[in-house]
Order: sequence, then structure tokens, then C-alpha cells
Amino acid sequence: MAARVNSTHDASLQSWVESANDPASDFPIQNLPFCVVERGGGSAAAPEDPRICVAIGDQLLDLLELGDAGLLGDPESDLVLSLQVDHLNLLMAQGNEAVSTLRRRLVSILRHDSPELRDRRDLRESAMMPAAGAKWLLPARIGDYTDFYASIDHASNVGAMFRPDAPLLPNYKWIPIGYHGRASSIVAGGTPIRRPRGQTRPREDQPPVFGPCAMLDYELELGAFIAGSNAMGEHVSIGRAEDRLFGICLVNDWSARDMQKWEYQPLGPFLAKNFATSVSPFVVTMEAIAPFRTAARARPSSDPQPLSYLLDEDDQARGGIDLMLEVWMQSAAMREAGTPPVKLSSVNFDRMYWTLAQMVTHHTSGGCNLEPGDLIASGTVSGTDRGSRGCMLELTWNGPGADPARSPITLPTGEQRTFLADGDEVILRGYAHREGFRRIGLGECRGLVLPARD
Amino acid sequence: MAARVNSTHDASLQSWVESANDPASDFPIQNLPFCVVERGGGSAAAPEDPRICVAIGDQLLDLLELGDAGLLGDPESDLVLSLQVDHLNLLMAQGNEAVSTLRRRLVSILRHDSPELRDRRDLRESAMMPAAGAKWLLPARIGDYTDFYASIDHASNVGAMFRPDAPLLPNYKWIPIGYHGRASSIVAGGTPIRRPRGQTRPREDQPPVFGPCAMLDYELELGAFIAGSNAMGEHVSIGRAEDRLFGICLVNDWSARDMQKWEYQPLGPFLAKNFATSVSPFVVTMEAIAPFRTAARARPSSDPQPLSYLLDEDDQARGGIDLMLEVWMQSAAMREAGTPPVKLSSVNFDRMYWTLAQMVTHHTSGGCNLEPGDLIASGTVSGTDRGSRGCMLELTWNGPGADPARSPITLPTGEQRTFLADGDEVILRGYAHREGFRRIGLGECRGLVLPARD
Repeated sequence: MAARVNSTHDASLQSWVESANDPASDFPIQNLPFCVVERGGGSAAAPEDPRICVAIGDQLLDLLELGDAGLLGDPESDLVLSLQVDHLNLLMAQGNEAVSTLRRRLVSILRHDSPELRDRRDLRESAMMPAAGAKWLLPARIGDYTDFYASIDHASNVGAMFRPDAPLLPNYKWIPIGYHGRASSIVAGGTPIRRPRGQTRPREDQPPVFGPCAMLDYELELGAFIAGSNAMGEHVSIGRAEDRLFGICLVNDWSARDMQKWEYQPLGPFLAKNFATSVSPFVVTMEAIAPFRTAARARPSSDPQPLSYLLDEDDQARGGIDLMLEVWMQSAAMREAGTPPVKLSSVNFDRMYWTLAQMVTHHTSGGCNLEPGDLIASGTVSGTDRGSRGCMLELTWNGPGADPARSPITLPTGEQRTFLADGDEVILRGYAHREGFRRIGLGECRGLVLPARD
Repeated sequence: MAARVNSTHDASLQSWVESANDPASDFPIQNLPFCVVERGGGSAAAPEDPRICVAIGDQLLDLLELGDAGLLGDPESDLVLSLQVDHLNLLMAQGNEAVSTLRRRLVSILRHDSPELRDRRDLRESAMMPAAGAKWLLPARIGDYTDFYASIDHASNVGAMFRPDAPLLPNYKWIPIGYHGRASSIVAGGTPIRRPRGQTRPREDQPPVFGPCAMLDYELELGAFIAGSNAMGEHVSIGRAEDRLFGICLVNDWSARDMQKWEYQPLGPFLAKNFATSVSPFVVTMEAIAPFRTAARARPSSDPQPLSYLLDEDDQARGGIDLMLEVWMQSAAMREAGTPPVKLSSVNFDRMYWTLAQMVTHHTSGGCNLEPGDLIASGTVSGTDRGSRGCMLELTWNGPGADPARSPITLPTGEQRTFLADGDEVILRGYAHREGFRRIGLGECRGLVLPARD
């Protein structure tokens, strides 16, 4: 396992960026997540002008400006060159030691007693900007996207609705089940999501119909961006798998449940998922999250041990992440009434049945090459009690066939939901906290549901 | 429907490249498929130097050299600039009218009575090279790869083995079933394929095991590269779907059947497919194949008509392709004995239940954006009789559970096969012929099976 607690985690460390010292901030100097934003603001000369930044408090620090000013060392180094593009892939390709070096340098620039940027007003003004109102871009060019299914509670719940006779399939406890998703339709959080149209079969005694999805859902997931690469035909052993994780983000795997039910046999979900997937703008490095690593979920003695290629003592001891994930929602009526978003559920990522390292190792075990910037996602993160279920299908138990046990959500406006309505905005949040460490946040992943096209 | 028979199909047209006039050639002047090859030959100055070419007879014509010599018009035009890279994506992005313009220009350069290249010996020597021995590269940077399941005969056969109680699922005749494949592990034909290792469960009363795949299979498929793009949220109507096809190629969707059986529920095939997919080096344009378009397979009156978004008169009339596809094999012992490859099966693509246009329209019907260079594949192409089955699983009927009806293949050496052995080379071929037109070939898609890693 690569990332261990180190000096960049020192909770006493403060920044001269005052907002970063607020204990409630997602982005203290101990975090410094990477993101890509448009700086151009629509001028003819620089209509987009994307920049790689790190978030610090309520500000973004532009690493291209920092590099140009010579604050990141040799301007011809691979590290500095990798910051001159509109994606994190080149940085991800260099592996986590290079990232750690960069982070230490950024900490030394941003710490409260460091004058090198703080006292250079011109540079500070060109290199720093408020995060509020930023136009977020995807953090990476995602070559391939893989979605796993690593929450046993989610798999059991959904299985009970889709396959009442066989909720949890026999392979579940042996294989970190995953499938390939669509890369082209992954968008940065904040991008509105259009309700898809598609084929569904509302009544089994009638032909299917084509029209707007009537069971639009979100899925609360954790994503991980891949660092480095393995040649096709080579695998990544479980002991080396953590080195292949660059960092984590929030993922909303939007799902059309009615389309999914009708299409998913025998080759898996397709149009029910590929109309859109949202990722949060911020990638929190594995180093930043290191203090919150925890034991992998213990398997009851009645469960099989993973096969040896998936089993590693260190992964079992520290493969989990003590990370709270939350879903919030605000309907159009709530926005109009000035009612703030309401929390629908919260769950800890430490409940996952499979670790991120196990996902990487299994993914490559047959020789599949994972490339820098590839995205893997955990699958919906759910717990056992109702308040910890990571999608609306589970929350309202309004599965295919409209189970009589269903229980709609009531919003503060009195509106009810069994699935998403047009105008609903879904907001995913995530954060880790632990005595003796600064709170680390993942920021938000937002998505507003637009009506289907005519 | 975009491509119609036009002057570039004139069967009387000959080339000054003599080998192109051989009636048995895959690549007459009427074809001119695009490919990308390495020209550098390993020199320090140009270790790779990839070039976009068209095949003509047994030669390749380097379009970068042709453009540099001014033979393709304005050197600053989008068309000529799109030929200066190591992939066809920029050409694919321009749409099929631009490609048609380029093809007409190439025909005028290569026709028997045209001196402009024929009589310029220096240019001819720099721009032409033998196809034999070329190092093939992938024709495009494939952003996303989607595999369909459009042969009802294949679906019925495989279904009978994997799900004897429900071979053809209720959605099959309504939905062009497809799923997302892995883009990173797609390789150009000729690249050796390493047998994957993976999890299988040979005995249901025993735990699963991890080791080399014991049921390695090929799948004979037709691929189509996407031209142009649709914005996310927009669909492509069935009447416009053909415009989104750039051209076709052969695809071998290598499959680990024992891994597939154990892993594929409920989210579809994953490691059983993502270790490798081979595509033929040549992309035959939709224009070149236009004379061989034929009616879509007629549905028996007992089958439902497709829903209206998938139904188009012109697509029904010309959505099929009268195209023979073949699988050949040569074992290591055959190579040693000088025994040529043996044909395992042949099938006509006109048997497909769903057309390529229906696949494109269905794929985008929920708003999924298809990008230039994306690859869609048909799924295994099979017919009803044994000699037309497009994978070994169907040919030998040695499905999961080793059906007693199985019948191994006997090779000319006396060797038997129920699945692929190390050292076997699989060769896919495809060609179209029709009275009054020149035969058009797809070339070959080769893949040699290497032993699994230790």
C-alpha cells in the first residue's frame, strides 16, 4: 500500500489563504484536490483557456501560472509540462511519487508562513481565483470507464427487486463484479442532465413503448482515477494495486430504471446508463485521504475468503476508507420557495464488500490494460438501513413492478418522489474526518434534471 | 441512406497498379480501404512514423506523401490536414461527403490512364510500398467501443447453452441488444493475443479457481467506425443513421467462455472479453460497399415489427449487406507441416436481425453521443447450419457444462479442437461480390494465440 500518513497531513498546518483554515472547509491545505477549470471567460482570444488548478479553501490556484512564474522548479521538467494541458492525464501518467513531490511543493507555497506567493500580489492575482462560479471541466480525458458493484447491501437490495428469486448471485462474494460504462457521456458535475427517452415495457402483456424515462434515478458512487499504466497482457498484483490509484471523486451514475429492467438481460445495462454520468470536479489524491484509510469490511465467517490473487494482508488492514457520502436534493419548487436542499441519505464507504485495490487487481487479472485517466467507480454505495441507501430505487423501494412495500420520499414542500422529477437537482457530497486530523472533503457533484426532448 | 452506387463503382475501371486488376484481389481501385501503418522501420530519426494509407492491389499508397506533393489539393484544407496524423479520426469527423471527395480524387490518380503519379517515379517510390510485411496500427483512436448482439441465430445458439430454459429473451426482437466493451485493449489484426487468466468455476459444488482460461474462443464480427458526432442529449434518427457510418472492418471479439459463464450475471461480460479485441487493419468505406447493400432480413409475420424509431423503409430495403464472412484457422502443427489454414465456417452478413443503422439509432436514442472513431461491432455473425456458426462455442457445441451434443473440430493434422489451443492462429476474412461489379474485400484480421503468463 503506497500512501501513508506523512507531514502533509499535519493538522496544525495552516494556510495564508484564510478560508482554508475554516474547520468546515472541504479544502484545507492538507487536501489540495486537483481540478480543471475554464479561465477564458469567453473572450475571443481565450474563449476557454482551460487550466489545471488545486482547490484551497474557497479559492483555486492555477498551476500553469505557478509553473510559468518558476515556482514549481525546472519549467522543462515532466512535472511542470504535465500541468500545461487541459487534463490531468499526463500528471496521472507519472505516478504517485511525482504527485507527492508536487503536493509537498504546493504545501510549502501555501503554508501560513510562506511569503513566495502570499507576498507577490501580481502573481497572486493572476494565479488565484474564487472557486465560486468557476466553469468546471472534466478532470481527465477518460479513455475507459468501468463501473463496479462493490456494495453488497446495494446488490442485495436491487437484486431483490430485479430478481426476487435470486437477489444475490453465487458469484458475488467471489468476484468484484464490474462492467464497462460509456466514456463519451461522462460530464463534470454542474452539467445539467437531460432525461433520456427509451424503450420500456410497462406491462408485460403489452408490447414495449418508446418515450421519456419514467423511473429516472441517481446512484451515489465513489470514483477513482487511474495512475500509471500496465501493458496489455500484464496484471497488477494486489500488493501493487494501490499505486495505480491517483485519487478519488464523487460519481453520479444516472440510471433509467424502467429502461434498465427491459434491456439488461443478458449483456448488462446499456442505454439505461449511457445517457450521462457525472463526476465531481475535484480529484482528492490518495495521499490526502491516507489518514482516513481503515480496515476492509470484515467478512462474516460464513462468507468465503477471496481467492489468493485478491487477498493481501495490507489491503485487508487498510483497504477501506472511512469516508461519509451523502445525497442531497432540491426540487424546482424548493428552489422557488428558497428552501435549501434536503439530505436524502448518508452512508460510510467503509461498508464496501470489495476494496478499490481488489477492483484494480481483478480488472487487470486477465491482462486488461488500465491507462492513466481511466475511471473506475465503486457502484452504488448503500448500507442496510433506509437512511443509508444510495439510490432512489432502494430508498423508496419502488422497483420494477412497483413493490407494495414502496414508500415515497416526502420533500419539505410536501411534494412526493418515488423517482426524480424534472427540475430536481441532485447533490452528492463526501468528507472524511478523524480526531487529530483536518477534515477532508470531496466537494460536491451536482446535476439538474432537464425535461426529455420532444 | 447516404451511399448509392456511383461512378467509383464502375467495374470496367482499371488501375495502373497491375495487382489491383486481379479479379481475386480484395483491393481493386473500386475499394481503396483506409489503414494506418508504421513506415519508420525503427530508425532513430523515425522509429515509428505512422502514416494513413489506402490499399490498392498488393500496394499501400501513403496519403501524407501524396498530400505533401500537392496531389490532394490545398495543403491547408481540413481534408489534407486530416491525413497528417496517425489515426483516421479527423477524416471520420468530416463526414462522408468529404471522404467521397477524397476517394474520387484517389481514383483519378490511380486509374490506368492517369499519369500524375504513375509517371512520377520519385513520388511513386516514396508514396507506394508493398502491403506485405507492413506493420499495421489501429485505424482510429477508438474512444468508445460498443458490441451488439444482432445475429438472432447466434443469440439463439448461445442462449441455448447459457440459459437452456430461456435461450432467446423476450427483449431480443424489440431491442438491438448491445453493451459497452473495452477500448484500451483493442489491437490491430496481426497482434498476438495472450491467453487470459481468470476466475472460473468448473464444478458448481466446488469453489471457483483462478488460472489460465480453458475455453478460449474467437467471435467473427463485423465492425463499423463512426463518422461525425452527435451532441450528448441528441439522437440520430433512423433516416440519418447511415450517414454516421464511416466504413466497415472485421472484428474478432476474443472470448473466454469459462470466465464468461461464471462472471456475466447480472451486469454482462467483463474480463471474459476485455483482455483483447482484434480489428482488421483496413476500413472499407460505406461508399465502396454500396453496390452490395441489400434488403434487411425479412422478419417472419410472427415476429413483431420494430418500434417506429427503429423502422425506416429505406433501411429495410437497403440496410443489409450481402457480404461473406469467413473464419480460417492454422494450428502450430499445421504451420510446421506447411499445411495452409483451413476454413472453419462462412456466413453471409445479410442474415443479421438488426441493421447497422438500427444499432446507431438505438445507441443514440437516449441521448448517448457517438464520436468520430468510435467502434460498433455487430456481435458474432452466425447462420443456422453448422458451417455458418461464427464462434467455436457454437461450432463444437461445447458450451458451459460440455453438452453431450458437442462435436469437436478435426484439423487436417488430425488434431481436435473444442476451443482454441496455444499456437492456433485465427484468420477472419470478408468479401462481397455481385454480377456487374468488382469484388470488394475486407482483407484479413489475424490473431495468434500465445500461452498464458505464468
